[in-house]
Amino acid sequence: MIARSAVVLLSGGIDSATALAVARHQGYLPYTLSVDYGQRHQAELRCAERVAASLGSIRHTVIQVDLRAIGGSALTSSTIEVPKNRNPDPEHGDIPVTYVPARNTILLSLALGLAETVGAFDIFLGANIYDYSGYPDCRPQFIEAFAHLAQLATKAGVENQGQYAVHAPLVNMTKAEIIRLGTSLGVDYSMTLSCYDPDSEGRACGQCDACFFRQKGFADAGLPDPTVYQD
Amino acid sequence: MIARSAVVLLSGGIDSATALAVARHQGYLPYTLSVDYGQRHQAELRCAERVAASLGSIRHTVIQVDLRAIGGSALTSSTIEVPKNRNPDPEHGDIPVTYVPARNTILLSLALGLAETVGAFDIFLGANIYDYSGYPDCRPQFIEAFAHLAQLATKAGVENQGQYAVHAPLVNMTKAEIIRLGTSLGVDYSMTLSCYDPDSEGRACGQCDACFFRQKGFADAGLPDPTVYQD
Repeated sequence: MIARSAVVLLSGGIDSATALAVARHQGYLPYTLSVDYGQRHQAELRCAERVAASLGSIRHTVIQVDLRAIGGSALTSSTIEVPKNRNPDPEHGDIPVTYVPARNTILLSLALGLAETVGAFDIFLGANIYDYSGYPDCRPQFIEAFAHLAQLATKAGVENQGQYAVHAPLVNMTKAEIIRLGTSLGVDYSMTLSCYDPDSEGRACGQCDACFFRQKGFADAGLPDPTVYQD
Repeated sequence: MIARSAVVLLSGGIDSATALAVARHQGYLPYTLSVDYGQRHQAELRCAERVAASLGSIRHTVIQVDLRAIGGSALTSSTIEVPKNRNPDPEHGDIPVTYVPARNTILLSLALGLAETVGAFDIFLGANIYDYSGYPDCRPQFIEAFAHLAQLATKAGVENQGQYAVHAPLVNMTKAEIIRLGTSLGVDYSMTLSCYDPDSEGRACGQCDACFFRQKGFADAGLPDPTVYQD
């Protein structure tokens, strides 16, 4: 079997680190891609770089795209507060203000550009539907629609050099299941950061939706939480 | 009739300027968007700004996204030369090295993010199939697939606040037809730049594919070419 290249989107959090470990476990040669979109927490980009190195990325690429020019999200606008202590319900909640307009479409389109350049037809994404508070662009039907688009969008696609696939191996898993899977594949979650509002040293706030799901995930998995929280 | 907002992708060239004029003519309130993707010719971004102002853009936004991190194109890589004097055949040519991997997917995804933020469901794109040397992401089936994706990708889409449409009003027009249409709608093409390799003063090379099609377009339209060429 010839090893195939894949592009893995890497945010610095639990899910994308686990997706990278899955891609490696399935025999792909992973090119990791982080997107610096002006999110408030640059700390997660440093985590992504460490995770990439620790899990055997062939090459780690960072692309800058300033989504603050678009705004519309608590993660990219300084005028919208990150919600705290709201005990979110992942199955019945509204789409929260941390939703970034068209984020996964933008991230996947950049991954597609990189994939075409490195000759990959497989893109891995850590999206999952349970834990992300109902973001529309984490749903399977979105992910399938993107793979269809990729085939039409690219030189490699129309020339039939290969068939694009977008892999979201965690899409139906709970955070606890993801953490158990990643732990079995050797992911060191102390390198990852989930918090929407970390301090300047990269310590998690312990109060936002992302911290809530992370803490619950480790508890449900019966594994120790290696996260460093703010005092 | 209530005027609807639209996002219009504006490159600084003939096609997108004409698409903006069409959007205005159809009664849309246009939010223009230019993407600074590290293309060699920053001059076209200055043209886009002038075109936006002259054709009544409600607000002109520039987003930086550094596609040089991806490479793979003569327009974003310093190691690939822009082809000159090759008399391209738009209907039978191969996809040229000026193809930027996944460019229109990336541009449309950014336009989608802006559309959601400003409450627009219509995106205008100057793509046309005849004159762009066979770029896959200028074809109608790509554009339709993107509109389908947009509906699934966004909070506004899943909440049924509206139906996304991607308008490519020039998609089946020749360059001459585009120039005639734009002229009838008041576009001042002296503000636009098509060249893939302009000099530092924004003067066109007169030798690349884009200059070839532009010159042929004005000639076929029977209109004077206002372009300033290098000596």
